[in-house]
Amino acid sequence: MTELKEQLINTRRKFHRFPEVGFTEFITTYEIYKALKPLAYTLYLGDDVLLRSARVGLPDDSVFEKSYDRAIKYGVPKEFLEYVKEGTTGVIATLDTGRPGPHFAARFDIDGLPITESEDASHKPKTEDFISLHHGEMHACGHDGHITTGLYLAEYINKHRDQLKGRFTLIFQAAEESVRGAKSVVEKGWLDDVDYFFSSHLGIRNLPAGTVSAATTDFLASTKFDVKFSGKSAHAGVEPNAGNNSLLAGSLAALNLNAIARHGGGSTRINVGTMTAGSGRNVIADQAYLEIETRGETKELNQYMFNKAKTIIQAAADMYENDVEIIPVGEAPDAECSAELIDAVKEAVKNNNHITDLKDTLSFGASEDVTMMMERVLEKNGKATYMLFPFELEYGHHHPKFDLDESVLLLAASVYTDIVNYLMKND
Amino acid sequence: MTELKEQLINTRRKFHRFPEVGFTEFITTYEIYKALKPLAYTLYLGDDVLLRSARVGLPDDSVFEKSYDRAIKYGVPKEFLEYVKEGTTGVIATLDTGRPGPHFAARFDIDGLPITESEDASHKPKTEDFISLHHGEMHACGHDGHITTGLYLAEYINKHRDQLKGRFTLIFQAAEESVRGAKSVVEKGWLDDVDYFFSSHLGIRNLPAGTVSAATTDFLASTKFDVKFSGKSAHAGVEPNAGNNSLLAGSLAALNLNAIARHGGGSTRINVGTMTAGSGRNVIADQAYLEIETRGETKELNQYMFNKAKTIIQAAADMYENDVEIIPVGEAPDAECSAELIDAVKEAVKNNNHITDLKDTLSFGASEDVTMMMERVLEKNGKATYMLFPFELEYGHHHPKFDLDESVLLLAASVYTDIVNYLMKND
Amino acid sequence: MTELKEQLINTRRKFHRFPEVGFTEFITTYEIYKALKPLAYTLYLGDDVLLRSARVGLPDDSVFEKSYDRAIKYGVPKEFLEYVKEGTTGVIATLDTGRPGPHFAARFDIDGLPITESEDASHKPKTEDFISLHHGEMHACGHDGHITTGLYLAEYINKHRDQLKGRFTLIFQAAEESVRGAKSVVEKGWLDDVDYFFSSHLGIRNLPAGTVSAATTDFLASTKFDVKFSGKSAHAGVEPNAGNNSLLAGSLAALNLNAIARHGGGSTRINVGTMTAGSGRNVIADQAYLEIETRGETKELNQYMFNKAKTIIQAAADMYENDVEIIPVGEAPDAECSAELIDAVKEAVKNNNHITDLKDTLSFGASEDVTMMMERVLEKNGKATYMLFPFELEYGHHHPKFDLDESVLLLAASVYTDIVNYLMKND
Amino acid sequence: MTELKEQLINTRRKFHRFPEVGFTEFITTYEIYKALKPLAYTLYLGDDVLLRSARVGLPDDSVFEKSYDRAIKYGVPKEFLEYVKEGTTGVIATLDTGRPGPHFAARFDIDGLPITESEDASHKPKTEDFISLHHGEMHACGHDGHITTGLYLAEYINKHRDQLKGRFTLIFQAAEESVRGAKSVVEKGWLDDVDYFFSSHLGIRNLPAGTVSAATTDFLASTKFDVKFSGKSAHAGVEPNAGNNSLLAGSLAALNLNAIARHGGGSTRINVGTMTAGSGRNVIADQAYLEIETRGETKELNQYMFNKAKTIIQAAADMYENDVEIIPVGEAPDAECSAELIDAVKEAVKNNNHITDLKDTLSFGASEDVTMMMERVLEKNGKATYMLFPFELEYGHHHPKFDLDESVLLLAASVYTDIVNYLMKND
Repeated sequence: MTELKEQLINTRRKFHRFPEVGFTEFITTYEIYKALKPLAYTLYLGDDVLLRSARVGLPDDSVFEKSYDRAIKYGVPKEFLEYVKEGTTGVIATLDTGRPGPHFAARFDIDGLPITESEDASHKPKTEDFISLHHGEMHACGHDGHITTGLYLAEYINKHRDQLKGRFTLIFQAAEESVRGAKSVVEKGWLDDVDYFFSSHLGIRNLPAGTVSAATTDFLASTKFDVKFSGKSAHAGVEPNAGNNSLLAGSLAALNLNAIARHGGGSTRINVGTMTAGSGRNVIADQAYLEIETRGETKELNQYMFNKAKTIIQAAADMYENDVEIIPVGEAPDAECSAELIDAVKEAVKNNNHITDLKDTLSFGASEDVTMMMERVLEKNGKATYMLFPFELEYGHHHPKFDLDESVLLLAASVYTDIVNYLMKND
Repeated sequence: MTELKEQLINTRRKFHRFPEVGFTEFITTYEIYKALKPLAYTLYLGDDVLLRSARVGLPDDSVFEKSYDRAIKYGVPKEFLEYVKEGTTGVIATLDTGRPGPHFAARFDIDGLPITESEDASHKPKTEDFISLHHGEMHACGHDGHITTGLYLAEYINKHRDQLKGRFTLIFQAAEESVRGAKSVVEKGWLDDVDYFFSSHLGIRNLPAGTVSAATTDFLASTKFDVKFSGKSAHAGVEPNAGNNSLLAGSLAALNLNAIARHGGGSTRINVGTMTAGSGRNVIADQAYLEIETRGETKELNQYMFNKAKTIIQAAADMYENDVEIIPVGEAPDAECSAELIDAVKEAVKNNNHITDLKDTLSFGASEDVTMMMERVLEKNGKATYMLFPFELEYGHHHPKFDLDESVLLLAASVYTDIVNYLMKND
Repeated sequence: MTELKEQLINTRRKFHRFPEVGFTEFITTYEIYKALKPLAYTLYLGDDVLLRSARVGLPDDSVFEKSYDRAIKYGVPKEFLEYVKEGTTGVIATLDTGRPGPHFAARFDIDGLPITESEDASHKPKTEDFISLHHGEMHACGHDGHITTGLYLAEYINKHRDQLKGRFTLIFQAAEESVRGAKSVVEKGWLDDVDYFFSSHLGIRNLPAGTVSAATTDFLASTKFDVKFSGKSAHAGVEPNAGNNSLLAGSLAALNLNAIARHGGGSTRINVGTMTAGSGRNVIADQAYLEIETRGETKELNQYMFNKAKTIIQAAADMYENDVEIIPVGEAPDAECSAELIDAVKEAVKNNNHITDLKDTLSFGASEDVTMMMERVLEKNGKATYMLFPFELEYGHHHPKFDLDESVLLLAASVYTDIVNYLMKND
Repeated sequence: MTELKEQLINTRRKFHRFPEVGFTEFITTYEIYKALKPLAYTLYLGDDVLLRSARVGLPDDSVFEKSYDRAIKYGVPKEFLEYVKEGTTGVIATLDTGRPGPHFAARFDIDGLPITESEDASHKPKTEDFISLHHGEMHACGHDGHITTGLYLAEYINKHRDQLKGRFTLIFQAAEESVRGAKSVVEKGWLDDVDYFFSSHLGIRNLPAGTVSAATTDFLASTKFDVKFSGKSAHAGVEPNAGNNSLLAGSLAALNLNAIARHGGGSTRINVGTMTAGSGRNVIADQAYLEIETRGETKELNQYMFNKAKTIIQAAADMYENDVEIIPVGEAPDAECSAELIDAVKEAVKNNNHITDLKDTLSFGASEDVTMMMERVLEKNGKATYMLFPFELEYGHHHPKFDLDESVLLLAASVYTDIVNYLMKND
């Protein structure tokens, strides 16, 4: 067991060293592919993984180029990069046992964040020398641990494939951050005939390691989008009247978006997180760029916010005679875990002695694009759940000093294999 | 001369007693008509005076009814009231000498203001017992003096008609306040073939009585309008989301109207003078009513402001999903007096010994709908001017204690007759 | 039983005829006093009922004068009016049995609303001739029924006083609407040593008559206040720079109040219900008056909103160099009913056959100043609950056609007497 | 003459190649110094030129470092850089003839702009190979020509110094752009005893080369400043209430700054040219940075705008509980040229045959910190003027394709020497 634990820790640390932000996971995709290649899976890459046109929130070409060069330098073969270089990252692995049985799917997200990792002496990745080698990017949300869990599960299924039945689909998904990547996988059809769908997150709740939650409540539905106002510049001294002021259009939108009426039906959120406007002090600004998100306790409440937002943004543009473009970046619905899977998980892990506290559900209180996959599975009459593996968080997710309690890697791995075993017997 | 002076003062005081706000000048119109009836003029009333559809800023029916009853009580015959009762007030008097000569026109405005006259012991109309008998209405802008001047001029022309040549048109115009009445007279065509057009104001500049200005500069073009936002009410506790907030639409419009960019081409103004919104503390407001005006140093600058205002008001309505109505109230262009008439006036009054200081021009700095008449005259190749007869103002125009220096009545009367005489000889 | 039912209906209809808005309940107070006078209670009036300085949201003197004249005309003796004429309305009745036992208190609110009652043929008070005789005022929230219940309970206690123990305090409270009156009673100390406190509302939930809820959840804490901005007027054409614009200060406050950040801890509300600003189109507005309310799921959440509101209002005044006054109008905390009293009520009414459906709690979702009394009782270690007596609502509370289902009068009366009897045996 | 013309063109092109933005004119200062060194002037550098603490709008240290390295590479000696490296750039050259006579001063501004010069084939500096070698910086306002004129004047005075009388002060001033540099020279006292002060601009009015204006009207007084709001970040989903939103503070300031009331006394301007706020979509923004300017037809009107701006900015910070810092960047008063110098210039150039059209004054309509020098000279009873040397502008000042009509170099040079000669004879 100690050996397995070490193996998992090594895998996680390897991925921790080369975090890549969403849709640029060229090295990550390659390393996952390399790990799965020797096994009995059919592997899918590039346009076979996702529907290119359904991706949102893609980075600029210059980012792709930089990541390409970095991957070449790392040693990813040029032929491999052909599959992924335009942002078609991620791997899907399928295995058909040939025996009748359920279709089991699991999803592991693989992207890093645009955060510069702390080099503080108190930060273990620094002192134990597995800190990010990609300056300005970091696995600050634990997706390195998710990859690790997924690869272990893949090996386990491969190893026991003669004792298993039905079909297995393991999804290593790009660009979960800003809830951008799931949609393109869903639209490709991968979730259309899944019977049991599992996914999970390490951490989140600040509870002792050993705690497992069989399901999750309180996903906030969310829409992420950018807004670009385009007006007309003019000399601010000579003829301010000739300008169509984009800075004012943006300011007006920001204020009024925050004034959207609260909803009697439940919690809602709005945020204009950033705004960049104008080119010079004595010029009427002819550009403003805003990054915005709406949220709601339900998909309907989020939709209420997004609809109001669109109205307000258009009116702000009209008021200052600007053109305006709303650029979709990401989207996640709310979701409800299947009660049957809560019971199944609880039964499955009955004898798992890594678990010290087993809960039916814990609250999430944020957004995850896995909800888009869960929604499709449920629509197609499958069942879905999202588990949590909490640990004591010294620094929260997305913090430059965030770190995994690596003991949860083994815990998570064991829970997934327990579930597979249980479903084989009880489906 | 003392006799004439007294006669003018008596006339002015008679009109001062029954001020009537714009388009309700039923008694005033009747008294002017009565005074002109015995003379050689052709008189025009009602729809012959103005184009009904071109009037703006009409009062409510209830105001018409109240004024009707008041006029009946005063003694205006019912048959006469038929001409004016729907707001078609004012009189036009024409006289054709039958001899070839120029077409001379003059305009005198006749309406009072919705101001309650002061009953203070220091206020002469109170102590000398000619204070307004119409509570809440007052001749606080001197139009009682303008009527007086006009009636004197009418008598003078009538008396000397055998020595005169050409044609005369005397316009006693309704509803100058809020620049509402002139347009409907212009649209009727009365100014289309005028050769010489004169009008004037008593007071305005705070200079010694005896000062005369042959012309006026710095008329501000102006547009007056009301805005009514109509939204949807909702319980502010239970479902604020269900409302379309008119109070916020109005507030938004007010702020952004004030933020219209200054114009490099000259002075502009905007004011939202009043706003009334909402029905109760715990209800989302479903109504907002705003009284607004724009101004500009030129007609184009005022138009710039009004165009921007319309855009902003529509966008404010859109932002809070309100319907909106823009209700025109009044309009005045800018104007430039004809240089030829400055010379003519100066020549004409050369021997007028009531004048102590004769100026080419003085600045107005406000709006007057006479500019609409001047504009038409100039377009048709006539000449026009607007004279000022200043006096020392203890209280400004529109103040509850405003009063005329009655010595200017004779001055103004004498200047008008000098001009008529001059034009007869020099045209 | 039919006789009692009729008696209750008659009482309710009597009070329905002369609704009086908060702090002007001169006739109402007199009639309650008259009804209690023959009984064994000690009665308190005027400054003995409430702490004058703790009242908020008082009407203008002119309203007091009008109500005084009306009461005189109705037949209220001048000597009696001395107690109430300055807004010190309401009655408190106490009875000490002389035997050891608990202190029982109940509160009945007595004010009407500034709503004009419907004269529609479908409206029973119209057709059965007990419609409001006070034009513009109406018992549209059922407080006439509350008074009725309270008076019946008073009679019942009086009648059985020899079989009862402990002390009784019956509070007929003024000015519940806009949550204004309770505070002044609490500050007088009346709730400081109460063991069991009961209050209730007729209607609210739209459920079949016969339903009783032993307690109520989801009171929204609320603060009601007015805001008066005072700036400086100036001529909008001549020198707009000289003004301090109150209309803009008010507009700015309204927009930014609506933009107060949502709270992660639960529901909040804000509403600027009305705004009146400015005096004329061409004058910079020097006054703005706003009616505002904040709410929160808890007292803390409401306090968060009110604190933010104060900051914003001050800053809006500063931005346009206005003075500003925040005028408190009313206040209600949230409240939680005592679990022990839920059990007590359920036991007490076990054999009450008017009840068809007995519930532990129902949700309120609005604000009530009774929460201020409950808070004080709980602080002093007493127990408190607030019951609901729903019926099927054709028109909601505060609607011009609101009407009571009069069958609930007997139901409510019987529940209160059941409770008194139960407490006598079980305290 | 052709030789002189060529010499001037060469000098101008040399300076055109190494434009340096305000306070980083290390190479420029060195080259001016080198040119003056052989002459009879006393030269002042560094803290002798300006009062360090009176400078505003200094660049970051990193900019100084970059410019230092660039100057080293260019060949400026380290010892020389000691004088200027902390932003104490510019040169002052004085010459005392020893003979009684007036104190003549002239000012030439030397800085470039942060604009990338056009490499278009139609742009002469590109095709004739004197385009800026400093990417992102450009002499797009003609200061290269100003330096050229100043150096020629210096040589001329030096050469004829035995025929001249009185004293001469030639000011090569740093950082005119954004009106930042003049103040520090004035505060050092250099303008305190000047009798005749001359300065000028090439271009500005789009008139045929050969036109000279002896004076300039319509300088706009202006204040340039930056504003930094500092709030508090918070997770926009979890607890938006915990943030103090700087993006909203900035937006609010921008809107309300534009709503400052127009001034009855004359033209005013305001512009928020740029705003940068926030760090991420799902974080409440805790920083906003705005670049702002106010202007006014007079110093008082500009002061009115700046005072209002300060009030609004503070209130915007208060409204969203932000700290705020107002960072001065530059300042220029208005100015009026001395009538006596208009006459003097006209007399002086009477026989100058480069001039095709001589005007008393032309309008400027923008801001120049030379006005701060003129103001000091006039206060001390000296006389001052600012001349214009228009030419036909294909592209306006500050445009990436702006270019001088090099024929005006000789014209300007000749006018300055004419003036010196005239003053010698006529003072």
